[in-house]
Amino acid sequence: MLPRGRPRAMGVAVLLLLLLLVIGFFLFGRDPEYGLGTTATLDGDLYGSRNLSASSPQLLLPPKCEMLHVAVVCAGYNSSREIVTLMKSVLFYRKNPLHLHLITDAIARNILETLFRTWMVPAVVVSFYDAEELKPLVSWIPNKHYSGLYGLMKLVLPSILPLSLARVIVLDTDVTFSSDIVELWAFFGHFSDKQVVGLVENQSDWYLGNLWKNHRPWPALGRGFNTGVILLWLDRLQQTGWEQVWKLTAKRELLTQTATSLADQDIFNAVIKEHPELVHPLPCVWNVQLSDHTLAERCYLEAADLKVIHWNSPKKLQVKNKHAEFFRSLHLTFLGYDGKLLRREPFGCPNHFPPGAEQLQQALAQLDEEEPCFEFRQQQLTVHRVHITFLSYQPPPPQPHDVTLVAQLSMDRLQMLEALCRHWPGPMSLALYLTDAEAQQFLHFVDMSPVLSVRKDVAYHVVYRDGPLYPVNQLRNVALAQALTPYVFLSDIDFLPAYSLYDYLRASIEQLELGGRRKAALVVPAFETLHYRFSFPKSKAELLTLLDAGSLHTFRYHEWPQGHASTDYSRWREAQAPYRVQWSAHYEPYVVVPRDCPRYDPRFVGFGWNKVAHIIELDAQEYEFLVLPEAFSIHLPHAPSLDISRFRSSPTYRDCLQALKEEFHQDLSRRYGSAALKYLTALQLSRSRA
Amino acid sequence: MLPRGRPRAMGVAVLLLLLLLVIGFFLFGRDPEYGLGTTATLDGDLYGSRNLSASSPQLLLPPKCEMLHVAVVCAGYNSSREIVTLMKSVLFYRKNPLHLHLITDAIARNILETLFRTWMVPAVVVSFYDAEELKPLVSWIPNKHYSGLYGLMKLVLPSILPLSLARVIVLDTDVTFSSDIVELWAFFGHFSDKQVVGLVENQSDWYLGNLWKNHRPWPALGRGFNTGVILLWLDRLQQTGWEQVWKLTAKRELLTQTATSLADQDIFNAVIKEHPELVHPLPCVWNVQLSDHTLAERCYLEAADLKVIHWNSPKKLQVKNKHAEFFRSLHLTFLGYDGKLLRREPFGCPNHFPPGAEQLQQALAQLDEEEPCFEFRQQQLTVHRVHITFLSYQPPPPQPHDVTLVAQLSMDRLQMLEALCRHWPGPMSLALYLTDAEAQQFLHFVDMSPVLSVRKDVAYHVVYRDGPLYPVNQLRNVALAQALTPYVFLSDIDFLPAYSLYDYLRASIEQLELGGRRKAALVVPAFETLHYRFSFPKSKAELLTLLDAGSLHTFRYHEWPQGHASTDYSRWREAQAPYRVQWSAHYEPYVVVPRDCPRYDPRFVGFGWNKVAHIIELDAQEYEFLVLPEAFSIHLPHAPSLDISRFRSSPTYRDCLQALKEEFHQDLSRRYGSAALKYLTALQLSRSRA
Repeated sequence: MLPRGRPRAMGVAVLLLLLLLVIGFFLFGRDPEYGLGTTATLDGDLYGSRNLSASSPQLLLPPKCEMLHVAVVCAGYNSSREIVTLMKSVLFYRKNPLHLHLITDAIARNILETLFRTWMVPAVVVSFYDAEELKPLVSWIPNKHYSGLYGLMKLVLPSILPLSLARVIVLDTDVTFSSDIVELWAFFGHFSDKQVVGLVENQSDWYLGNLWKNHRPWPALGRGFNTGVILLWLDRLQQTGWEQVWKLTAKRELLTQTATSLADQDIFNAVIKEHPELVHPLPCVWNVQLSDHTLAERCYLEAADLKVIHWNSPKKLQVKNKHAEFFRSLHLTFLGYDGKLLRREPFGCPNHFPPGAEQLQQALAQLDEEEPCFEFRQQQLTVHRVHITFLSYQPPPPQPHDVTLVAQLSMDRLQMLEALCRHWPGPMSLALYLTDAEAQQFLHFVDMSPVLSVRKDVAYHVVYRDGPLYPVNQLRNVALAQALTPYVFLSDIDFLPAYSLYDYLRASIEQLELGGRRKAALVVPAFETLHYRFSFPKSKAELLTLLDAGSLHTFRYHEWPQGHASTDYSRWREAQAPYRVQWSAHYEPYVVVPRDCPRYDPRFVGFGWNKVAHIIELDAQEYEFLVLPEAFSIHLPHAPSLDISRFRSSPTYRDCLQALKEEFHQDLSRRYGSAALKYLTALQLSRSRA
Repeated sequence: MLPRGRPRAMGVAVLLLLLLLVIGFFLFGRDPEYGLGTTATLDGDLYGSRNLSASSPQLLLPPKCEMLHVAVVCAGYNSSREIVTLMKSVLFYRKNPLHLHLITDAIARNILETLFRTWMVPAVVVSFYDAEELKPLVSWIPNKHYSGLYGLMKLVLPSILPLSLARVIVLDTDVTFSSDIVELWAFFGHFSDKQVVGLVENQSDWYLGNLWKNHRPWPALGRGFNTGVILLWLDRLQQTGWEQVWKLTAKRELLTQTATSLADQDIFNAVIKEHPELVHPLPCVWNVQLSDHTLAERCYLEAADLKVIHWNSPKKLQVKNKHAEFFRSLHLTFLGYDGKLLRREPFGCPNHFPPGAEQLQQALAQLDEEEPCFEFRQQQLTVHRVHITFLSYQPPPPQPHDVTLVAQLSMDRLQMLEALCRHWPGPMSLALYLTDAEAQQFLHFVDMSPVLSVRKDVAYHVVYRDGPLYPVNQLRNVALAQALTPYVFLSDIDFLPAYSLYDYLRASIEQLELGGRRKAALVVPAFETLHYRFSFPKSKAELLTLLDAGSLHTFRYHEWPQGHASTDYSRWREAQAPYRVQWSAHYEPYVVVPRDCPRYDPRFVGFGWNKVAHIIELDAQEYEFLVLPEAFSIHLPHAPSLDISRFRSSPTYRDCLQALKEEFHQDLSRRYGSAALKYLTALQLSRSRA
């Protein structure tokens, strides 16, 4: 398109002018009145948001594969769930490696460390910073905002983030991305030399001070800015003496204001009012605020692209808004999005694998897809994302004989939870095998249940579904690892314990002096009913009456008596004191053990042998089995699981289970030597009988 | 930035040149060697794909809200599932109104008409075209490709699409979008006057003719082009005499070729070889081909953005590829994506609501959220997406006395299907209440099951989940509407029919001469077992023995005898011939009726009264209830559903059900007058007793 030859100067000038016009037209689209203005005010003529967002950031995209830094302050259970949805939306669109800087309290750190370790997202680095250390830096500021001290911490990020970090995007947990975060990062390229902070205008009239009589907000430039999305140029901030600047401003304002109303945002705005040169205004689409009385519509009705939605109404997703359905659908997209699909590497950048990911990939690649037990092997190797303490939780106070009920379940057993809560008034640690979408249904289910919503001593750990076989022992291990009392009752979700069991177990532990060096597994005898509606026995005497009447049976008496034969139910009928029993083949009682007991063998997935192997392990480690004379729990009827149906109908399934058993015994021999021989002999004996 | 004052001509020239360079740098990014070339060959130096895709289409975006047209040829059950995933990916990113032109066989039309009608996506218009009509136009072309005649139909689209349609994007069903389709549409703006078809280069060596000895592909320009994604400029095609051109070429080539190997693609390529001026080459990212031996890596490793993935390997998602995981995760995103989230209107365009959507929105908006039965009302109004005949299906041959078993289920009852298939060798119509992700698990489950995968007479209809209450009667109505035999057995998924029931019912229908004007509901007496493992009685005699032994009971004998009291089990024991029984309050037998029987009342959602109301309706319409002496079915044990648990624990739930019952009776009185009084009296009587 460039003219050849040596044209005359005027000719060139005219030609270039024309070219410039043509290119300008392409660049700035069909609305030539929208310039490249960098301000984007809700009232001004220079709207600019559409063009800014659609075109200009792409012009200054950072080098391919540049690491982008994102900081989020996150505290407590609810924010820890929110940040996951935020991160899913960011990861879905991102193409760059990311470094997350998470400023967390102990609760969020515990949750998010486990989550990101098990999520194994390539090209994502996560660093944690202790919010406790920041508290003294902001605790002198009175704050009326619900976010409390954490709401103020964005002010002091430059003090805690590494000095090497020049620029960072700071996000609230209640935002959702609908675009590639690199486009936001690109705005750093538009900063003038003086500018240190990029912000979107506040999309309400709050700072205009006319919301109600005597409403006296903190000072702000016009409508002020919203701090849900911030571009922070950290090294420049330090050079400009940011710490002194904001502290001075805050102290001065606090002479007339009693407190901040909107936490850090009030102080950011007061500083900007005084030093407008510090702020680089961002187009409104990068922080579409859905607060009450929002004016955001003025922004997005003009915008072809929404980039970031900010759920900054106290009503959150329930916010009333003409376009709420549209925004909700964006948010729900990521709420229910299967996080494992984000375990994909960005293209064309050097690979950053999270710890363990490469070995895992290799191990998976070495599996033989044609091998009959391929599905089993693959399932065993699967690393499931784990979100521990998914809901609010109050850990039990430390007590030397306390017992946590440990169990696992999937969606089809949710209806057991209320009954379980009524039967077990003590702490519980439950692993739930759910999809991301089901986790949200579960949350709703607990919220709606008057029984469950008040129980803060039940810890729910979500293990995200991946693969066709139920990873029963991995689930048990997650629940077991999160139990915080000295003892655990290893139960199954279909069992309801005797009403008195929690108290009785604690008393028994104390009486038997298990705290010392005695290694014991207390057996809770298992029964079953076949009736949907069933009046639960209040005592052992009532239970025995029902047993004699045929309304109750010992567990699996008809189908699999070996499983509980060692418990010796006839002795239990008469027993007044705990009695010791010996292990025998296929024994799989429900037991109470110290929480540092052996873990379950994760190789057993799907149906079969998952508890049996654990009991063998206890026996091999010389745990005594002591049957408790007043303890019992009762299995309620349910349809056979998909796994048990497959076990029954598929010879391959049974063969694979057999192969797993043999491998288990080989491992056992390696670890316990000749002492483990009895288990192998028992297995062989039972096979020759079969 | 523009200089003020009146500069000298040379000064302007230099300044403009500088500006141009700066803007050029912004526009064309960090790789100045990549020009704005419009060709994108795998071997050439002018790669250009990244820049083309990242920048230039945005420069020529069509006017906001322009309607984009998309044509897809779709035939059979598998393609009908594929196109849903394709459309989800398109709808997820699109911002423009869309008009879909679907060229379908009768199967796909039946499925997709229902799907789109119930999907209710705003700003999507769907037109159907009969593929049958196109067959004669292409049937003269021998084709070795698995797509058969349908694979050739893209050639004749200009003949079937409306004359008013100037341009259309043509897609294969096996592509997945990861970007806004308007960016693809924008390439029409790059076409020269001569160009009529936009295509991406074929990403394999196929057309080079060196794949194996004596491999003689159809002629093509270099590597040729792939026709999975086509931009067709329809009116220009007609002007250039497209029909004559391609037919001539095809006929000439067929003098030496025995058939097309790759269907339409061979012919498109042969035409382009002869008339290269017709093609506008598209950047490779718009059709990343994952065929075996693909060279696609050369494209996407350079590309920041993948736009369209083409699963054109016969292995489809199982394709082996270094980056297969990445591509699969994109595809799985939409496979499992909740389609109802796409019921969102594009912003800022005039609203195009699908039929019924506005009334529905109004009705939903009028509900009072504070009302205790809000959840019920909302659930009743919910329009669920419905994908009928989700899996391959062979409708039963027409037989005058044939019976289809009709039932509904959700994921937690999948394990019943195999047993049901063993007990019922006849046709079934089953509605499944699933999420999009569960529908894929279900597909896998059927594929893996030797029992289910061979049964082509079972029609599975997926009703997509939406809302907290199980829409039991809406599900039943979907399954009922899709039953194709003259009679239906209205059963529930937890029941297994007697092995002989299918034959016995057909014989009974014939004997009772139900084909005439006689309105009858044949009652199949219901029993239950409480045992997981259970030897199903082979005959009525065996059943009676089990009943006497207490291993079987009449259904809900202990909990709710009213439900089946009218069946009169003691009479049934002795009966040798069908006997008539009278309706009584709460009667809810399982019945065989003509398929044009009354529908279920969709107001009953969740637990309770859903069958009772239907039986009342039958009685009000004067169906005779005839109990069949040799018929029976047996209910297997399962855990109580979430809905029944809620019913039992929530007084509100029970109150709402009561309110629904009363409304039902009011409607009944309106429709049947004083004849309906007996039902109301019965209800009031039962309430006064309670």
